[in-house]
Amino acid sequence: MLKATVYVTIKKSVLDPQGVAVQGALRSVGFQEVESLRIGKYMEMTLDTDDRAVAEERLKEMCEKLLANTVIEDYRYELED
Amino acid sequence: MLKATVYVTIKKSVLDPQGVAVQGALRSVGFQEVESLRIGKYMEMTLDTDDRAVAEERLKEMCEKLLANTVIEDYRYELED
Repeated sequence: MLKATVYVTIKKSVLDPQGVAVQGALRSVGFQEVESLRIGKYMEMTLDTDDRAVAEERLKEMCEKLLANTVIEDYRYELED
Repeated sequence: MLKATVYVTIKKSVLDPQGVAVQGALRSVGFQEVESLRIGKYMEMTLDTDDRAVAEERLKEMCEKLLANTVIEDYRYELED
C-alpha cells in the first residue's frame, strides 16, 4: 500500500479567476498583504500496490488522462509508504 | 516578501463526495488500484511582509475567517522565503 499526493495547479501563463476572487475577498476583509494568490487541487490517495516504479507510472497516466487538463494545468505527485 | 502555501482538507470524519466521484471515475477508466481518494484545496500566495511570526499569525486568521470552513475542514500552512 502506497500513499500518494497529487497537486494540480493552473499554469503560470493562464489566468486563475478563482484565485483572483479569493485574493479580492481576503483584501476586502483586511488582508492587504496578500500580493498574489493561486488556487490548485490537492488529492491524497492510497494505492493498492507496493511497487513504487509501477505506482509512479500509473500516477502519471492518471494525471494525463483524468486528473489534470494538461493544456492549462500542471501536475506533480509525491509518493510515501 | 514571503511565499506561503495553504492546504485545506476535508476532515477525516466528513464524507468527501468529490473524492468519491473522482475515485469512481478513475476506477471506471481502469485504475482499480485506487483504494481511497480525498480532495482538498491548495493555495499558493505571496505575502508583502518579511516577518515570519506576523505572517504565520495572519495566515492562521485568514484560514479561520475565510479560507477554511473549520466545522468540516482542516487547514495547515507552510512558509518559505
